[in-house]
Amino acid sequence: MNKIRIAMLQALLRGSAEERREQIRAMVEQAAGQGIDLVTLPEIWNGPYQQELFPSFAEPRFGPSWQLLSELAAEYGIWLSGGSIAEYGDGKVYNTAYVFDRSGREAARHRKMHLFDIRITGGQHFMESATLTAGDRVTVFNTEFCKMGLCICYDARFPELFRLMVDRGAKLILVPAAFNMTTGPAHWELLFRQRAVDNQVFCVATSPARDMEAGYHAWGHSIVTDPWGRVVMQMEEAEEIRFVELDLDLVDQIRAELPLLAHRRTDVYRLEQLGAK
Amino acid sequence: MNKIRIAMLQALLRGSAEERREQIRAMVEQAAGQGIDLVTLPEIWNGPYQQELFPSFAEPRFGPSWQLLSELAAEYGIWLSGGSIAEYGDGKVYNTAYVFDRSGREAARHRKMHLFDIRITGGQHFMESATLTAGDRVTVFNTEFCKMGLCICYDARFPELFRLMVDRGAKLILVPAAFNMTTGPAHWELLFRQRAVDNQVFCVATSPARDMEAGYHAWGHSIVTDPWGRVVMQMEEAEEIRFVELDLDLVDQIRAELPLLAHRRTDVYRLEQLGAK
Repeated sequence: MNKIRIAMLQALLRGSAEERREQIRAMVEQAAGQGIDLVTLPEIWNGPYQQELFPSFAEPRFGPSWQLLSELAAEYGIWLSGGSIAEYGDGKVYNTAYVFDRSGREAARHRKMHLFDIRITGGQHFMESATLTAGDRVTVFNTEFCKMGLCICYDARFPELFRLMVDRGAKLILVPAAFNMTTGPAHWELLFRQRAVDNQVFCVATSPARDMEAGYHAWGHSIVTDPWGRVVMQMEEAEEIRFVELDLDLVDQIRAELPLLAHRRTDVYRLEQLGAK
Repeated sequence: MNKIRIAMLQALLRGSAEERREQIRAMVEQAAGQGIDLVTLPEIWNGPYQQELFPSFAEPRFGPSWQLLSELAAEYGIWLSGGSIAEYGDGKVYNTAYVFDRSGREAARHRKMHLFDIRITGGQHFMESATLTAGDRVTVFNTEFCKMGLCICYDARFPELFRLMVDRGAKLILVPAAFNMTTGPAHWELLFRQRAVDNQVFCVATSPARDMEAGYHAWGHSIVTDPWGRVVMQMEEAEEIRFVELDLDLVDQIRAELPLLAHRRTDVYRLEQLGAK
């Protein structure tokens, strides 16, 4: 048995950056005092998810949101998947996810690699690339439970990225994410179930709660899927803290019973990561 | 509008190879006389789906099943996705799918590339590799409607193969397949929905009907999914001929609205097909 206890924070965040940090602090405090190993936050919580506003609330790497997350991780002795925030660096703005270990050390940083530019007839329009720059690194980090992968929302649409994380040893994939009222009902659950089956991993996708007063209406429905493609837990759209316990040994069991990863025809095709990233 | 009319034959086949051919002939005759462009058959119809029996009913490339399929395609002026049969060639046995054009010419041949070897605790055991040899070619062919890809059952478990077919221009993927009572309820619909979303293609997966007197109990549930991940049609487990009409222009529309294929980070990763296959 290799069990991990997770608290997922489907937060409804409003107001100034400072107010949002206070809300995050309060929710982490509420979640962490229960024998929890890992707390997860949603995508872009330090300001509204609106492409034109990202530059206005972007923070540098060691800015106030980063500091808060590091402090909370250390204070409660938890792993903290800090969702993502708008990050300012090298004169550019990124959608960046951080993970902190139990001592408050930054264990992983992922800059969203696939920017969300869609234009659905009668549905969602969004153009992250208008203000954001894409990252170019695959992010996997080690924990005492297993290696974990980290990507952000639209990144999860790309099977290649999941394969690259799994090839580096990930058995659980953290995904701060915010699908919307078009793509959410159509694809959210489906996506995380099938990524879990294909890659024989757990997926832990944390969304903000739906705020109908916000410019972007998130689907919510934070979800955990297991390597057999089952939904372990799924929320509704409202703000909520939900606890789940996962037995990571299931990954090895499923990989032995249905050896999809071993059955890849690496003599016929090869997925390569380019450069030394 | 670029419409194709398809008849899918979820056949329940029993008896000798000759009896099975007669049944296939009767079903194709019944299906083809209705303005149908394409008829699809299930995986391994020329004998029982049992690993130890494949060598006993394998046929060479131009054997009686091949001849029948070619004749039927020409006689009715249809495209015929002839499911798959156990094929004998070069001293080996393959699980091979053929497609014939309206003149009866072999338009595509695919040898199953990923062999189905699984051992699920309390569930399905199977070991195709005990008697079969795997193919090593990616199969795409041209029609007057669009390019189509062709793979067999367990092949569809591998996202890499779908990508390679799509990169060669496929907009519709034909999959003769036979999931079982363990993997069927868990993964069948999920798989074909998500492959369709990821690759923005139609998937047309044709299963045999379930025969509880057979050694292998197929899931049935022949299915068509569209590039938005919707189930266009899904059967139950019984023998049935089902007709569907697809507008292939939907592929281009979805690819424009949600440009997943264009958004791949080909500067960060690359899926390569090895050799000149």
